Amino acid sequence: MSKPSIPKGTRDFLPLQARKRAYLFNAIQEVFALYGYDPIETPAMEHGKTLLGKYGEEGDRLIFKLLKRGDKLKQAQEKQIELSDQALRYDLTVPFARFVVQNQSALSFPFKRYQIQPVWRADRPQKGRYREFYQCDVDVIGSESLSNEIELISIIDQVFTKLNLEGISIKLNNRKILAGIATYIGHEDLLTPITIAMDKQDKIGLEKVKEELLTAGISSTGIEKLEAILSLSGSWTERLRALKTILVENPLGLKGIAEVEEVLGTAEKIGVKGLELDLSLARGLNYYTGAIFEVVTKDFPSSICGGGRYDDLTGLFGLNNMSGVGISFGADRIYDVLEDRNGFPKDLNQSSQVLFINFGVEEAAYSLQLAMALRKQNISAEVYPESSKLKKQFSYAHAKHIPFVVTIGSNEIEKGIFKVKEMSSGVQKEMNKAELIILLKDGNTHF
Amino acid sequence: MSKPSIPKGTRDFLPLQARKRAYLFNAIQEVFALYGYDPIETPAMEHGKTLLGKYGEEGDRLIFKLLKRGDKLKQAQEKQIELSDQALRYDLTVPFARFVVQNQSALSFPFKRYQIQPVWRADRPQKGRYREFYQCDVDVIGSESLSNEIELISIIDQVFTKLNLEGISIKLNNRKILAGIATYIGHEDLLTPITIAMDKQDKIGLEKVKEELLTAGISSTGIEKLEAILSLSGSWTERLRALKTILVENPLGLKGIAEVEEVLGTAEKIGVKGLELDLSLARGLNYYTGAIFEVVTKDFPSSICGGGRYDDLTGLFGLNNMSGVGISFGADRIYDVLEDRNGFPKDLNQSSQVLFINFGVEEAAYSLQLAMALRKQNISAEVYPESSKLKKQFSYAHAKHIPFVVTIGSNEIEKGIFKVKEMSSGVQKEMNKAELIILLKDGNTHF
Repeated sequence: MSKPSIPKGTRDFLPLQARKRAYLFNAIQEVFALYGYDPIETPAMEHGKTLLGKYGEEGDRLIFKLLKRGDKLKQAQEKQIELSDQALRYDLTVPFARFVVQNQSALSFPFKRYQIQPVWRADRPQKGRYREFYQCDVDVIGSESLSNEIELISIIDQVFTKLNLEGISIKLNNRKILAGIATYIGHEDLLTPITIAMDKQDKIGLEKVKEELLTAGISSTGIEKLEAILSLSGSWTERLRALKTILVENPLGLKGIAEVEEVLGTAEKIGVKGLELDLSLARGLNYYTGAIFEVVTKDFPSSICGGGRYDDLTGLFGLNNMSGVGISFGADRIYDVLEDRNGFPKDLNQSSQVLFINFGVEEAAYSLQLAMALRKQNISAEVYPESSKLKKQFSYAHAKHIPFVVTIGSNEIEKGIFKVKEMSSGVQKEMNKAELIILLKDGNTHF
Repeated sequence: MSKPSIPKGTRDFLPLQARKRAYLFNAIQEVFALYGYDPIETPAMEHGKTLLGKYGEEGDRLIFKLLKRGDKLKQAQEKQIELSDQALRYDLTVPFARFVVQNQSALSFPFKRYQIQPVWRADRPQKGRYREFYQCDVDVIGSESLSNEIELISIIDQVFTKLNLEGISIKLNNRKILAGIATYIGHEDLLTPITIAMDKQDKIGLEKVKEELLTAGISSTGIEKLEAILSLSGSWTERLRALKTILVENPLGLKGIAEVEEVLGTAEKIGVKGLELDLSLARGLNYYTGAIFEVVTKDFPSSICGGGRYDDLTGLFGLNNMSGVGISFGADRIYDVLEDRNGFPKDLNQSSQVLFINFGVEEAAYSLQLAMALRKQNISAEVYPESSKLKKQFSYAHAKHIPFVVTIGSNEIEKGIFKVKEMSSGVQKEMNKAELIILLKDGNTHF
């Protein structure tokens, strides 16, 4: 029999990894809740028609589809029609839009929700890119106020502060500015290829971007004008001031500038660090209409959080005039950054706080009672299930990073005093039940 | 455009439901951790060959399969071969067995793990039966000791105690007893149909079970003998004593009896209530070899937890001699029971602890600072995003069950004293920032 395996791009999580993931999800979720966002969940599978056509051709190709079953499958094969009518969630945004429309009568608006669930993409797996990964999304829908954008920036700041993840840049841009620029350079109709090319500036450099723009049909005067904008330097206030004079005749562009000014200004006022205006930031998705966010951190190639404002998202499902803004934290990438930086708390490898050595039926029964008493005090405890050799039982404690091991023989039962060994130091002390509880009570791991 | 919907048998979870689910999962997970079980996660999709053939014909039919993509799909269609090579998790037990074999070198045994993840089954949806639902599994693998069975019973007891879910019965039986009975009634070879029929006693009654047994080829003397066993009455000690004399010549049956005696005896000694010996309990799955567990509660038709010991599970994947025992909590059913009994904590409908009314740019900016200060104290707070009509803002607080609403106008900013209204009573008090923090600090919801 060959060794079993799992599909490529998917992962098993061993206990330490699972604990680190729980730590990460909890930290993110706690911040979301502190800002008054409500949790929701949607199913892993959606009707194919809900998802298909929402992510472009490339996206459609990467969606995992479920095979029809039984008679439906037979019929589909005979008639040579679609073999699938359901598909796995590709992101959390489209299901959220579907959710809002479907459940609108049960929701009160503005609706602030968070959602932490896995998504599936049949992408080519590579470092940091998986076929099953978690998104942590937080959105407000039904409010046009820029205070939502500011709140989301504050959430980004708080999440990374809580995770002690330093050296992040929160990049901001605005789709209205991009549209204004496209008009200004004389190619209002080519906004999409322009933004796609601009978005690559970080990766391929200005010269290659210019080549791409030329290929896309932008005139050389247009490219010159664009270059002047992309080369603006100075603080964000300085650059926005310059841009205002450049886009002076473009109301949409000026509106975008005013929005960015308010958002960056207020975010700075409430103490957010690492804010950056990035006029080349566009992000791939076409549904953004206002603010665009992206968070990067040094020495990590991909963004770890991103999002924006979309005025028309629920329009896909027939509900118009619902402006929304949201961001998505890439939990698996943030995990990788924390791992690279040794940034997880050190005590996550520990399972129980204490192991009772098993010397036989009677001793184990006594230990079991004691373990129950500890658990009542919220102290995690276990009794080794078999009276194996001492060495084996201690190895078990060592492998599970259990900080204390208690040995109870017939003598100890008689006296009600047990030997408690601190595994890290090897030091052994004698104590009674009450002393043991005090030792372990608040998750203590040292004598 | 038609109203969007989700596949049948799946569900959206609104905020209150999502919070109740989180409460339930946390309670279960906390108990697992107190007993020293380690978390793991496995992927939603497994290779088809990992799952298929493990759950019987019926199971195979209910497994959701993923459609191949691109060239692979084309080839499969042309060659008329299998259109799918991956499938969604059908339970957590088979993936766990695969996980143990695949990761054995990274694990230390006995390995105690818990796993809380969704599974998917293309079952016909009905009340309490979904196509996507969560299992909460806890297993020990690599130890034959009965102390594991006792520990699992203790975990069942603690989980339902923690959830304040009263009136549960923890039913126990043993596959060895069932095998002993099959031999005793002269049909050793018909163990499976016998156990399947016996398992239905609760639902269809003894007479129908007898009919089924006759159809299955059991002799009438055999049925008489079986009836005598199923009709044993009295406490579990009395019934086991009687059964010992009946199965006196059957070593396997006697071993089963001794196991049940030890497990029930010790579990009672450590204070577990609601224990029951149920000689007709068999459970469908064929891989159990020792203890069989099932938990039921009054006024609910299905079991809410079940499991057993399996000596050969990892044998499926080439790793022999790994005895394991585990149970699975049916979270969605337990949810339904708690819902029926009004058993969820009352404060789960609340999102933020406090809402700041938005009177305009300046007031909102001031409130934002205040909200940030509260969040630093772990108090969830939000500022209404727009300076809408007061009525609308108060309705929002009401809909989100936010217990306190703070109004800050220019007067209040000047004095540093705000109006704080308790929504439940309508009572309004004036207080400063420090008093507000004290009011809300420990999740208080009343003046």
